[in-house]
Amino acid sequence: MDARIDDAGMPRPADLPRRLVAEAVGTAGLLLAVVGSGIMAERLAGGNAAIALLANSLATGFALMVLITAFGSVSGAHLNPVVTLSEAWRGALPWSDAGLYVAVQVAGAFGGVGIANLMFELPVFFLSGRVRAGGGQFLAEVVATFGLLAVILACARRRPEALPLSVGAYIAGAYWFTASTSFANPAVTLARMASDTFTGIRPADVPAFVAAQLIGAAAATALLGWLMPVSASPTRERR
Amino acid sequence: MDARIDDAGMPRPADLPRRLVAEAVGTAGLLLAVVGSGIMAERLAGGNAAIALLANSLATGFALMVLITAFGSVSGAHLNPVVTLSEAWRGALPWSDAGLYVAVQVAGAFGGVGIANLMFELPVFFLSGRVRAGGGQFLAEVVATFGLLAVILACARRRPEALPLSVGAYIAGAYWFTASTSFANPAVTLARMASDTFTGIRPADVPAFVAAQLIGAAAATALLGWLMPVSASPTRERR
Amino acid sequence: MDARIDDAGMPRPADLPRRLVAEAVGTAGLLLAVVGSGIMAERLAGGNAAIALLANSLATGFALMVLITAFGSVSGAHLNPVVTLSEAWRGALPWSDAGLYVAVQVAGAFGGVGIANLMFELPVFFLSGRVRAGGGQFLAEVVATFGLLAVILACARRRPEALPLSVGAYIAGAYWFTASTSFANPAVTLARMASDTFTGIRPADVPAFVAAQLIGAAAATALLGWLMPVSASPTRERR
Amino acid sequence: MDARIDDAGMPRPADLPRRLVAEAVGTAGLLLAVVGSGIMAERLAGGNAAIALLANSLATGFALMVLITAFGSVSGAHLNPVVTLSEAWRGALPWSDAGLYVAVQVAGAFGGVGIANLMFELPVFFLSGRVRAGGGQFLAEVVATFGLLAVILACARRRPEALPLSVGAYIAGAYWFTASTSFANPAVTLARMASDTFTGIRPADVPAFVAAQLIGAAAATALLGWLMPVSASPTRERR
Repeated sequence: MDARIDDAGMPRPADLPRRLVAEAVGTAGLLLAVVGSGIMAERLAGGNAAIALLANSLATGFALMVLITAFGSVSGAHLNPVVTLSEAWRGALPWSDAGLYVAVQVAGAFGGVGIANLMFELPVFFLSGRVRAGGGQFLAEVVATFGLLAVILACARRRPEALPLSVGAYIAGAYWFTASTSFANPAVTLARMASDTFTGIRPADVPAFVAAQLIGAAAATALLGWLMPVSASPTRERR
Repeated sequence: MDARIDDAGMPRPADLPRRLVAEAVGTAGLLLAVVGSGIMAERLAGGNAAIALLANSLATGFALMVLITAFGSVSGAHLNPVVTLSEAWRGALPWSDAGLYVAVQVAGAFGGVGIANLMFELPVFFLSGRVRAGGGQFLAEVVATFGLLAVILACARRRPEALPLSVGAYIAGAYWFTASTSFANPAVTLARMASDTFTGIRPADVPAFVAAQLIGAAAATALLGWLMPVSASPTRERR
Repeated sequence: MDARIDDAGMPRPADLPRRLVAEAVGTAGLLLAVVGSGIMAERLAGGNAAIALLANSLATGFALMVLITAFGSVSGAHLNPVVTLSEAWRGALPWSDAGLYVAVQVAGAFGGVGIANLMFELPVFFLSGRVRAGGGQFLAEVVATFGLLAVILACARRRPEALPLSVGAYIAGAYWFTASTSFANPAVTLARMASDTFTGIRPADVPAFVAAQLIGAAAATALLGWLMPVSASPTRERR
Repeated sequence: MDARIDDAGMPRPADLPRRLVAEAVGTAGLLLAVVGSGIMAERLAGGNAAIALLANSLATGFALMVLITAFGSVSGAHLNPVVTLSEAWRGALPWSDAGLYVAVQVAGAFGGVGIANLMFELPVFFLSGRVRAGGGQFLAEVVATFGLLAVILACARRRPEALPLSVGAYIAGAYWFTASTSFANPAVTLARMASDTFTGIRPADVPAFVAAQLIGAAAATALLGWLMPVSASPTRERR
């Protein structure tokens, strides 16, 4: 009997090193997609920011869908500290694992930005000067992260097979319908400081973005906990 | 035994408060996506209305697909009074529940518009002056709502798992192939009065839009009732 | 026992009147989407034909996917005379039914064009003057129809659940990668004579388009018959 | 008993001639889509390279998804020598078959480019002068091919039904987030020499592209072999 398969024929969860590598590689891929497509889009768009954002949003959505499909079975493909914190809060992940998840997500995120910068012949890291501030932006990040977590938690409980497409489509849409272009991810926010290009963010604006993300994620976790109690899910949750 | 799960292991339908919250939050999310992406798209598009509508239509389609996926298992994710009326007409929803559904859909719709306006640093509500009138527009809303209801009723009977993607794709397409950009939803129509931006509508034009939507929805409900009788569906209808 | 459900719990095929109505309404919806989105796109695009074709191709692809999902269980959702002829050729449809299918497809196609024209305040029918001629265009229509039929026949044999998305994506792509923008459908070709707008075609160019479509469809039917013999399919074909 | 169906009701693998025809036709279709949509997009885009690349990337992604759906059950729909080599390396394909696969992929690729050129009234083959060189481009091709193989291997092991959509979405995104627009395929790279149009490549730059692709593919095969050992897959691998 193969020790990696349990009695029901399901694979046992991957061990911690594999899960951490999946989170690091996956988050690197996400940032590479966000920052790389932003650079390419701005270079080609001839000054029309709507065309640039259209390419940037679609490329990001496609990448997210693919990354969650590819790595979901290994680590859950959180790729986002607030997703990891939400899972730990509801008891689905030990807090010690959560800390390691967040650490490798942040490290992977910076790695992805560095590779994107190098591909486009830019310095490996250079600080962004792009201002993203004000009450509208703060509200937008609360809304964006509330929506992202609501989608993830609802799909995880009721339609796990729809999670990759739903998250990709949500973010591709939210680039447009939130005033902040929907960072919705603290690891993404930190790493986007390190590229002074289309998708960058000024370091001074990062703390407010992360605070807004934590508020939005907490609100969504509370609402969904009431709206869709886990024990009422039709199937055992498996992501 | 968990009282929220029936003998066949399926979750019992959510209770009325949860269903109403799902309809309110879902419809708010829909309007936030419609109006918010319209504002962002127009600001960035440099005067090219086709680029703005392309972003607006894709963001709306993505949002609809995700919202129906997320909230469908709680309330059916109608997010639209004519869908609710059609369900009540064919006996799938008590008329008293239908009235409450419509009330929270309209309230949620205004809530979503208000949040969108605030995110983009605009007044929470301000009346639109955008003219949408004439026979072509009226015909277009009849066609748009007929098509939307036909898609929803056909999927609900025969391919319920395809409903979220089908509705999202239908609306993203119908923004382009109907002369009215396919409102197809009275709650959406009312709330879009409250933002004088890309997706707004002049209050004087609302009654004709709503009348056209009721005609289109009734025609689709009648046709589909004949074309796909419910008892011939391969599986029990579950949305 | 419900006479509309067979012993295996599958719905019996719909009766002929329902199938013909589904083909007529579905083909009308397809033409409405093609011609309507072409008019809207050209009006908004400010002279940039690539933006107009992008909107037109995506709207058409979305509509096709949705129409096949909605009407596939009733009539097979051919919506295209060469698909019907290919089915009749391999014995899956009586030739007498095939004749009726083609008749209602053509009638529905003209109906859809008329509604599109009226929605945009144009004459119900007015002949197109758009030239689409030459050897490249002829080759392109052979290729486009060969590809469309290959996709349909392969999906029908091996992955019927993937057919709606595959056909929609194929056509959205083929608008771009064939020089003729991939009509690939004689009913569509005939009806597009009746609107002198973005997607129209000059009557003089119709015969060559239809001839090319018949050649491409016959070649695909022959190739797929050899490549994927029906008796080797993993499941009974059900569209 | 039908000799083409095994005891479990699954179709036996197609014989070698059918598999080789599927690889040849599929790779021809891929190149036709890449080069054809590039020509159409550049002609219509009025000098805006972002709009041209948006159309080109979406058309390519749609075509890939459809081709893998259509031909996957016959030959695996590799359509790419590095995919074939990766399969042979892990023992899933005899090396002698792999050699034939690569030969027909390259032949099919040139065939597809020739047809695309002819459709657009260009010479059947004419060498590209488009420069694609430098360290950033080399790194980008390593990254692009690493990502493509990681997606293919992960889906093949854990979510085979998601493979067509994932590969299409990956490439549509990677056109934007890699500096080289993600060739990621030696047969594609060779054949794109033969069209001096939007998607062409100067012959002198081909060797470095192919070398980068081999490095990326080998790295992904090694990583995924560790991350997702085949014996832990939940279902027998079937593509």
